Amino acid sequence: MTYCVGLLLDQGLVMASDSRTNAGVDHISSYSKLHLFLPAPDRYFVLLAAGNLATTREVVDRIRRDLDRAAVGAFDAPPENLATVNYLFEAGLYIGRVNRDVQLLHGPALREVGAAPEATFILGGRIGHEPPSLLLIYPQGNAIAATPETPYLQIGESKFGKTDLDRFAHPGLSLEDGARLCLVSLDSTARANLTVAPPFEVVLCPRDAMGPSQRLKLDARSPDLTALTESWEASQRQAFAALPAFAWEAPPA
Amino acid sequence: MTYCVGLLLDQGLVMASDSRTNAGVDHISSYSKLHLFLPAPDRYFVLLAAGNLATTREVVDRIRRDLDRAAVGAFDAPPENLATVNYLFEAGLYIGRVNRDVQLLHGPALREVGAAPEATFILGGRIGHEPPSLLLIYPQGNAIAATPETPYLQIGESKFGKTDLDRFAHPGLSLEDGARLCLVSLDSTARANLTVAPPFEVVLCPRDAMGPSQRLKLDARSPDLTALTESWEASQRQAFAALPAFAWEAPPA
Repeated sequence: MTYCVGLLLDQGLVMASDSRTNAGVDHISSYSKLHLFLPAPDRYFVLLAAGNLATTREVVDRIRRDLDRAAVGAFDAPPENLATVNYLFEAGLYIGRVNRDVQLLHGPALREVGAAPEATFILGGRIGHEPPSLLLIYPQGNAIAATPETPYLQIGESKFGKTDLDRFAHPGLSLEDGARLCLVSLDSTARANLTVAPPFEVVLCPRDAMGPSQRLKLDARSPDLTALTESWEASQRQAFAALPAFAWEAPPA
Repeated sequence: MTYCVGLLLDQGLVMASDSRTNAGVDHISSYSKLHLFLPAPDRYFVLLAAGNLATTREVVDRIRRDLDRAAVGAFDAPPENLATVNYLFEAGLYIGRVNRDVQLLHGPALREVGAAPEATFILGGRIGHEPPSLLLIYPQGNAIAATPETPYLQIGESKFGKTDLDRFAHPGLSLEDGARLCLVSLDSTARANLTVAPPFEVVLCPRDAMGPSQRLKLDARSPDLTALTESWEASQRQAFAALPAFAWEAPPA
């Protein structure tokens, strides 16, 4: 499994992912699920991936091939790629179509052995003068967007870390607070579920920038991550100790 | 959906449930999912129920009928009931069998319309001189038990409130702290999922007692519940505000 989360804030985008993949419980490995594309000076894209690892890998490879073939003027370059789309939602439709193509290619063989070909993506980025936006691209190729009312999107193992997001996510957060929130949500998830684990990757993309201002890869021993999780753990213990007594409890002596 | 949780502590049992049921999103109602049985002076049972509401209701009705028929010496009284079993695990097997019988009766008709007959239970209680114990009874009739290493059991919508339990649940908690932990876990779940909601029911069963010492039913406006959720909310905001800056952030002026 996987857990990825993106925040659409007034100040820009924050996107984060864990790095664990597993096929069953005895085939566990670490893969980056955060992919950065800078296909032209007027645009950038950050793609978070969850689902079948072979599908997500092939989708990323196809996206890069489409860009490369067009860049060298190859006769077989497809007409659309991340450098040609004019809006982020068109980038979402393009990635959704590539995802469908990969699933259609491998789905029949996978389903024969009871495996699922599906993959789900979170796409964040900017094109031209449009502000940054954030999409969740379903395996079927359609997509929803983050909005000021719903500033976060999650894919993968999303339930364990949702309470933190519901409590704190709002468009007024700074990018740094957004990054802390994503890490708290990732940490909550990794504690509860063996299939989600560090390194955690995080990008911060300021609203007016054409790409990330920070790209973090925090393994379990990185000082930034241990400082954050130790602070959170200590605060949680204080929060629990501070809970009020029930009306029927004897007052403390 | 539903969320129920039970804790096996050195001091005894704490068991808690929400009260929301739903069939789709437009048929939402409130039912107690916490059932207390006191069939003889040497025993008590607390049963928490999740799953198909008609199944859980019929299981509880059958358990009560089996006790009633035996109590009046009816010729059709079944040989086993909660008053005749000698160990809590036998009570679990008995309830598992009743659950299977109800599912076998209604399963074919339910599956015709795409509905699931399954129900899952948490059973806590004591018989005779045995210490309290806590079982999770699967729809298939088998069961697992809480232990000092795994002092909590959950059924229903269990992911949202698991992080709180993983952080705080240990056998040394007082019953009152256990009740607070269950309520925090229920509150986290109810915030994240519309199908879990107050009133929250909680029982505290001291190790040496033959039944609950406290039985709480806390609706959303009860002072005990609002005091707890407001304290938790305030502490969470402090915890978030106290998270340390990243190494690369400018120090506060």
